Amino acid sequence: MYRPEIKIVDCTIRDGGLMNDHRFDTAMVKEVFEACAEAGVDYCELGYKADKKQFSPDDFGPWKFSDEEDLRKVARECDTKVSVMADVDRTDYNTILPASESIVALYRVATYAKDVDKAIHLGNHCKKHGYEVAVNVMAVSHVLEPDLDECLKQLADTDFEYIYLVDSFGYLYSEQIQYLADKYIAALPGKQIGIHCHNNQQLAFANTIEGIIKGINNLDGSIYGMGRAAGNCTTELILGFLKNPRYNVKPILDIIEKYFLKLHAELKWGHEIPYVVTGMLNKHPRSAMALMKDSEGVTFGEFYEKLAAEDTE
Amino acid sequence: MYRPEIKIVDCTIRDGGLMNDHRFDTAMVKEVFEACAEAGVDYCELGYKADKKQFSPDDFGPWKFSDEEDLRKVARECDTKVSVMADVDRTDYNTILPASESIVALYRVATYAKDVDKAIHLGNHCKKHGYEVAVNVMAVSHVLEPDLDECLKQLADTDFEYIYLVDSFGYLYSEQIQYLADKYIAALPGKQIGIHCHNNQQLAFANTIEGIIKGINNLDGSIYGMGRAAGNCTTELILGFLKNPRYNVKPILDIIEKYFLKLHAELKWGHEIPYVVTGMLNKHPRSAMALMKDSEGVTFGEFYEKLAAEDTE
Repeated sequence: MYRPEIKIVDCTIRDGGLMNDHRFDTAMVKEVFEACAEAGVDYCELGYKADKKQFSPDDFGPWKFSDEEDLRKVARECDTKVSVMADVDRTDYNTILPASESIVALYRVATYAKDVDKAIHLGNHCKKHGYEVAVNVMAVSHVLEPDLDECLKQLADTDFEYIYLVDSFGYLYSEQIQYLADKYIAALPGKQIGIHCHNNQQLAFANTIEGIIKGINNLDGSIYGMGRAAGNCTTELILGFLKNPRYNVKPILDIIEKYFLKLHAELKWGHEIPYVVTGMLNKHPRSAMALMKDSEGVTFGEFYEKLAAEDTE
Repeated sequence: MYRPEIKIVDCTIRDGGLMNDHRFDTAMVKEVFEACAEAGVDYCELGYKADKKQFSPDDFGPWKFSDEEDLRKVARECDTKVSVMADVDRTDYNTILPASESIVALYRVATYAKDVDKAIHLGNHCKKHGYEVAVNVMAVSHVLEPDLDECLKQLADTDFEYIYLVDSFGYLYSEQIQYLADKYIAALPGKQIGIHCHNNQQLAFANTIEGIIKGINNLDGSIYGMGRAAGNCTTELILGFLKNPRYNVKPILDIIEKYFLKLHAELKWGHEIPYVVTGMLNKHPRSAMALMKDSEGVTFGEFYEKLAAEDTE
């Protein structure tokens, strides 16, 4: 039994870009887009819209900026729409073309709950330019309840289509996802709710399913889980779970074999113990990413004890 | 808030032995036992009790047979008890010593539902010899409901302490685990229920949590998930989740770093796409294990289509 309202956003290139400074080969990104299209994925998120005054194109690949000409090299008009992510405070409004001149269909505004006013401002700008708009409220496991309630109340008054529940640190368990999903759905009548989970504790797919059970219809996945640190719920597991006949997992499995096994061996996102530790402890993964680069003789156990002690100092 | 009834069985050496023909170095197994003891793990499962008339000691390491003298080289009397697994039809009853002469505390009888009579016979033999007894009913995702009901009814009439819900193929989703957990608990009054999950779809930890929520108290884990094919729920994730002050995850994290990263790189259990595919499709992992050894030019996508088609031939 499938739910036709469900939509998948594959964010492999966007979230995965955080592991390689957005330096994906154009031909490969084109194949990822085509695999998503063949699989029936609804949106393919190809990058960030970072401000070139803040981030030099010398330091990052093109998918940090998602210039229109680059997007058009890899995507085409079809049932799989193009999505980009615009970070609050890091986006140059002037680079947002009118929707009629862009291949982008969906802007996803990434924000912390405290910056919701800025997110609404940026989202309104995108909406005025003719786009679908989502707001991803990041790191919800660090937000105090009244602040989250206030944030959702403000978002309820917008005309944005989608609001995302985002477990940035891979900390939340099923009961917490259920609680938050109920809260988002109740607070945001008339909007579709999305879910974006990180996989620090191997709960990203399970929590996405809990979201579906609760009525969440917009599901974020990435191919082979590629994303920052522990990575994301995998697109292939979502496709395998959904019984919607318009989806097909095969092209995703084949592109994993062609590109992602090798990329994974190089970049090591996913189930690595330092990421497990930050997930368990509800921490930003930055200390784990540093440990992955250079352990400086610190053991996994010592890393755990150091992080656990931070809260009790 | 913790539940004092909860017990963890670490089955790293037993289930992990299926990936290396049970050839673990004695010194390493001793360190695993000591790490479990220091972590507060309740049982450490060290191997199978395979019949040497059926399996030659030339072909397998000592943890296939779990002779008393080998167990005593690695384990000692302490709060962490020793468990071994005895497969129906593969166990030599004559090698089961009286409990007073053995360091083993718990025999876990592994059976398919159809062989429950044999399992009860073997379990009774162990019980008569003074052991705690568990029965692990394997591959429950392939059992017809009336057969499972009959199996549980027979087990209800035994004096075995523990009956395990086992998702051998890593196929079950949370709602199915909830349904089965309710069924086992209702059918087996006075017994403790256990759960043993495989991680094909990255749901082993999530499903173990669902089991806990439903009232299951015996939790199987393995270090770094080491086990057949996709492996198990990880012991370290369970320890991180439980708030019981007698548990401590640090020694497990450190032994992962010392031994299991390297072992994993060699033996490749865990999140590999062939195992994902058999999990999605509710299949025994044997075809995936063969593909991992030699793909014979078959792509992941072709493997998926071939297996999916088997059911419709």
